[in-house]
Amino acid sequence: MSRGPWRRLAIVGLGLIGGSIARAARARGLAAQIVAVGRTPAALELARAGGTIDLGTDDLRTGLWGADLVVLCTPVGTLPDLVRAAWPHLGSGSVLTDVGSVKGPIVTAASGCPSRPGIAFVGGHPMAGSERSGFAASDPDLFEGRLVLLTDTPDAAAVAEVSAFWEALGSQVRVLSADAHDRGVALISHLPHLAAYGLVSAADGEALGLAGRGFGDTTRIAASAEALWTDIFRENRQPLLDALGHYREILARWERWIEDGDWGALEADLARARELREKLA
Amino acid sequence: MSRGPWRRLAIVGLGLIGGSIARAARARGLAAQIVAVGRTPAALELARAGGTIDLGTDDLRTGLWGADLVVLCTPVGTLPDLVRAAWPHLGSGSVLTDVGSVKGPIVTAASGCPSRPGIAFVGGHPMAGSERSGFAASDPDLFEGRLVLLTDTPDAAAVAEVSAFWEALGSQVRVLSADAHDRGVALISHLPHLAAYGLVSAADGEALGLAGRGFGDTTRIAASAEALWTDIFRENRQPLLDALGHYREILARWERWIEDGDWGALEADLARARELREKLA
Repeated sequence: MSRGPWRRLAIVGLGLIGGSIARAARARGLAAQIVAVGRTPAALELARAGGTIDLGTDDLRTGLWGADLVVLCTPVGTLPDLVRAAWPHLGSGSVLTDVGSVKGPIVTAASGCPSRPGIAFVGGHPMAGSERSGFAASDPDLFEGRLVLLTDTPDAAAVAEVSAFWEALGSQVRVLSADAHDRGVALISHLPHLAAYGLVSAADGEALGLAGRGFGDTTRIAASAEALWTDIFRENRQPLLDALGHYREILARWERWIEDGDWGALEADLARARELREKLA
Repeated sequence: MSRGPWRRLAIVGLGLIGGSIARAARARGLAAQIVAVGRTPAALELARAGGTIDLGTDDLRTGLWGADLVVLCTPVGTLPDLVRAAWPHLGSGSVLTDVGSVKGPIVTAASGCPSRPGIAFVGGHPMAGSERSGFAASDPDLFEGRLVLLTDTPDAAAVAEVSAFWEALGSQVRVLSADAHDRGVALISHLPHLAAYGLVSAADGEALGLAGRGFGDTTRIAASAEALWTDIFRENRQPLLDALGHYREILARWERWIEDGDWGALEADLARARELREKLA
């Protein structure tokens, strides 16, 4: 196990997040070699010609060969199968991690892989992103000052290694269980996306012509790629349904108070929300 | 009727919006005299000492005397009574307008005032604001590039005059019926505020510690003053209930699709929302 610099960093999936990791690691000199595995030759060639990666390949085995740190950055729905596919190609002493927005399915998949001494999996999720996507939108400073969530794998050395990697990219790391992660992100990321898409849908028609800055901010994340988010919603189905049900109950209560003219009760609930919101940065 | 500069501009209510109008009008030399009517002596004195207003008073009659343009900037729930109170004190040739977020009640109140030749009311609503409030948060450039909605009063000269005022402050003006206004802002402003307060309430607990930039943007408006917003919700009760009902149906449909695993249907709805959102600035 290493705390960097790494000998060979392998990134599978060179989109917004994978591309940003590659560019960030290169800019900070974190790895002697950076290899990317991807399906889009043009993105791989762009990254190689620009000096971001040393080698691009569409072959998983070739890409993982000799890597001491492997980061899976493909869409969240593909991750459980990808962990199983990557597992036999990992060399001894290497750590496998990922950047998926949902942690339960991939942690379960990794736990189901045959135990191999000197090989560890740590689930990861950088809380950074953009409504844009693809390598062209990648940014070496995307993770600067952002929170990265890691799953509480029993292998403390592997967790320390992945933490060191993210901290070197400028992030703050928090370790928690996959369950706590999935419930938490359902509430602070997945539900808000669904709510934002819903607000835009509800305003479809003449009202949209009146939209100002408040609507723009509140619905900015509704410009996000729907395929990616449908994938996330599918992977985090039950925690998302729980979060949606909770949100629905809150709005139904407020709707009833508005119907009944119980303004004092409504204002008290809004005051509590305002206080919570003010405590956030 | 005038298209400015105005002889005497009277502003009733010197908070965020009233204060910003006073500062914007002074900075652009739009009025020979600016008078403010307010209940907070400290704010009036601050504005007078800083050269923003020429006179501050807590007496409506004194404040309106000789004004050719009067802008009511008090909380939206107080506006119908304030229109009735101000009406007898308006001089011939003057135009009365307001900045309230709901237009039905004030337009109804103004229509109920005895007809007086040479005196007109035009409802107004600058789509600008802040989660901050009070004169201390006022900003002379608050209206620069923002949309201002005016009600379609039959008196075209009065509408032209109020339009000219807002355009001189850097705003774009749109004229529409009070009904269309109230339905529109319920969808693009009032409902989003309620939704944002609801997202913060739903995440109350450990999840809030995971919040990133997306959650911050989506819920920024939940830091808004709850008293002001409860007031707005009360004044726009029925259009808000209609908007809430429409939003609830959309979310219920998506919840059902998530339960049933109908991901294609969900993705198609999200694609439509994403396209609409991308068209906004």
